[in-house]
Amino acid sequence: MIEIHEPALEELIHDWSTLNREERLARFRSLPPGQDDDFFLSLEDHDEADLVVSMPASERRLWMRLLAPDDAADLIQNAPRSCQADLLAELDDATRKEVSALLAYKEDVAGGRMSPRFARVRPDSTMDEAIAYLRRQAAQVETIYYAYALDEEQRLLGVVSFRDLFSADRTKTVRQVMRTRFVSVLANTDQEQLAKLFREHHLLAIPVVDGDHRMQGIVTIDDIVSVLQQENSEDIQKVGGMEGLDRPYLEIGFLQMVRKRAGWLAILFVGEMFTATAMGYFEDEIAKAVVLALFLPLIISSGGNSGSQATTLVIRAMALGEVRLRDWYRVIRRELGAGMVLGAGLASIGMARILIWQAVKGAYGVHYLLVAFTIALSLVGVVTFGTVAGSMLPFILRRCGLDPASASAPFVATLVDVTGLIIYFSVAGLILRGTLL
Amino acid sequence: MIEIHEPALEELIHDWSTLNREERLARFRSLPPGQDDDFFLSLEDHDEADLVVSMPASERRLWMRLLAPDDAADLIQNAPRSCQADLLAELDDATRKEVSALLAYKEDVAGGRMSPRFARVRPDSTMDEAIAYLRRQAAQVETIYYAYALDEEQRLLGVVSFRDLFSADRTKTVRQVMRTRFVSVLANTDQEQLAKLFREHHLLAIPVVDGDHRMQGIVTIDDIVSVLQQENSEDIQKVGGMEGLDRPYLEIGFLQMVRKRAGWLAILFVGEMFTATAMGYFEDEIAKAVVLALFLPLIISSGGNSGSQATTLVIRAMALGEVRLRDWYRVIRRELGAGMVLGAGLASIGMARILIWQAVKGAYGVHYLLVAFTIALSLVGVVTFGTVAGSMLPFILRRCGLDPASASAPFVATLVDVTGLIIYFSVAGLILRGTLL
Repeated sequence: MIEIHEPALEELIHDWSTLNREERLARFRSLPPGQDDDFFLSLEDHDEADLVVSMPASERRLWMRLLAPDDAADLIQNAPRSCQADLLAELDDATRKEVSALLAYKEDVAGGRMSPRFARVRPDSTMDEAIAYLRRQAAQVETIYYAYALDEEQRLLGVVSFRDLFSADRTKTVRQVMRTRFVSVLANTDQEQLAKLFREHHLLAIPVVDGDHRMQGIVTIDDIVSVLQQENSEDIQKVGGMEGLDRPYLEIGFLQMVRKRAGWLAILFVGEMFTATAMGYFEDEIAKAVVLALFLPLIISSGGNSGSQATTLVIRAMALGEVRLRDWYRVIRRELGAGMVLGAGLASIGMARILIWQAVKGAYGVHYLLVAFTIALSLVGVVTFGTVAGSMLPFILRRCGLDPASASAPFVATLVDVTGLIIYFSVAGLILRGTLL
Repeated sequence: MIEIHEPALEELIHDWSTLNREERLARFRSLPPGQDDDFFLSLEDHDEADLVVSMPASERRLWMRLLAPDDAADLIQNAPRSCQADLLAELDDATRKEVSALLAYKEDVAGGRMSPRFARVRPDSTMDEAIAYLRRQAAQVETIYYAYALDEEQRLLGVVSFRDLFSADRTKTVRQVMRTRFVSVLANTDQEQLAKLFREHHLLAIPVVDGDHRMQGIVTIDDIVSVLQQENSEDIQKVGGMEGLDRPYLEIGFLQMVRKRAGWLAILFVGEMFTATAMGYFEDEIAKAVVLALFLPLIISSGGNSGSQATTLVIRAMALGEVRLRDWYRVIRRELGAGMVLGAGLASIGMARILIWQAVKGAYGVHYLLVAFTIALSLVGVVTFGTVAGSMLPFILRRCGLDPASASAPFVATLVDVTGLIIYFSVAGLILRGTLL
């Protein structure tokens, strides 16, 4: 009979965040055998770590030993520092050695994600011999979808997929069938770069080699899918103007969440204070022509919005490798054009609004045409500036070695607010001097 | 010898966007055999479609026939409608039938992503028989990592992984080894839901079945990785306040890009116009106390920034399934607390700034303490309102059947700007009546 266990598991995971440690452990122990290991393996790294840490030592061993070396390393990296040695001690000798080697790498590079348990074949085996040999390794390796042909010094000579092994003429050797042009990475390759390789080449595993092409391990695509989701969450949260949360929203502690948000919010606030300073210089103008103040939020927010769009586009294009540093000139040319077209569009909506309101209510006095021109011209200037500044900020940040994703929508909006009101009052000074000012 | 072809391919793809159709075709034809098919398969769906469409009919057949049915269906879906029938005609009869069936599904559901070419085994075969049988299918199927045991009516009975086949006792039958508890989906399952299943269960392929559990095809993880990237780009672009671009930044046409940005920008602009209307009601207050205008951008942007943070967090948590509609009460309680704490933090920075400026420059007149209190109290109100509104907007949108990701940072900022200035002037009216007002 077919039984689809997904919905039940889904329920367990969703509800999970509302439970405390004891309740989680009790729930976990109440699962029927067979479902408990499925559930355990489906937990996020940090939840897995929490659960194992909350178990008595006698219970830990079983679960630690269920994990592949790369997953065990991830779990240990997510456990409190004080427990890490104890957890490592639960592993058998061979695995402990492998896990210790993995722990030497940062979690976000190929070395920290790789499994040392790959399937190997001898280059001079026939298809039948290779298949028989793989059959003996099958239980121990992380994936058998690709087998790797190594020489005596463990240097990677070629990759052969299972499909190739299976479909090739039985009398051929591995050397005749294997691919010698393949993608491989070094242990320090960043995981975002890895994700890009998986995506572009439609691979299921990528071999990790050292500088002499000696095989170190493999990174498999299932590890990268969760990485992608996590990196993307962080990117989205940065665009929204905060540090990336590293845990699910409902699970992260209240104070920790507030701290992650407060930092950026305070920086933005201090940046935005310059608007008050800048406005101070235009106090007289405002006193003379209060009508100018009415349109202030409209004008500066238009700059902020167009800047947010531009910065979001460029950050994402950079993250996907579609745009590089040297493309800055193509981008600025494009955004200058886009800014002027978008600014002109908003300016015509703005003018229409003023002319209609004036006709209906006479709201803007005798100089309403000059006011309308001031608003329109300011909008073109502010939107163009916002667009160009928003698109260039990620380039500047990257050029300075910073994360371009820090150029969040609110960050750009703040930057553009200050310059936007200077543009606005300068345009007003030019057009309205002698009449309203 | 090891040759890593990735960098060359990378160069080709990057540069690709700057070429016109003829140049692309010429470049593609100049690639050495063996590298041209790697390159072809690594192109994004729409680039692949463009390239094939630009070829003379005689050249198309080779490339169309290189594609697996699901990839051919994706290509055809990305080609201009007028060419689709011609492209379909290039396929051999069997493939054409499969591709036509796939084209009946939307591109973003399991049915549109699935391959009908999966590996099948008979439930009563022994391990040796099953392996021999798979060996005969290997060249034709999309992935051989899992084999599917079907009954005579094509109903899915169980799944057996290659590793299990290889490591199990040779005399056992498939029925004894196969997993009967497994994840499967219906053809109309959304691709985001699919991505979640791949991630939670660490799977390489998921079977697609109909209502009677009859096997339709499989979705493989490599198709989902590109889906994930694309969906995430769209989500990020929505947070930045625009429609998702469906092509790389440097490749999309200028007018098309401007159009995607102009829509939201105009909507936000019209929304922001209400600030001018609202300000109209407070014109007298501004004329009496110009000092109020100075802090206006600071206060309303603080509401916008805190709202952006809250909305981004909630949208992402919803996309990942961490937060559901029924969690709204837990979220609002959390955000009410967070808003008050964050607002109080900004209020104290704001007060400090006013007191220091007053001490140094005497900038805010005799009633500076009242002004400081007005600013501080307004900040607590505006930030709390922004946070709560930003966090609830995605719930409201989803409740109305709309995409919660439409609650972009700029959208929330606009909403909060209007209410923010009403809060600000109301607080000012309460505190400053009889002194400045």
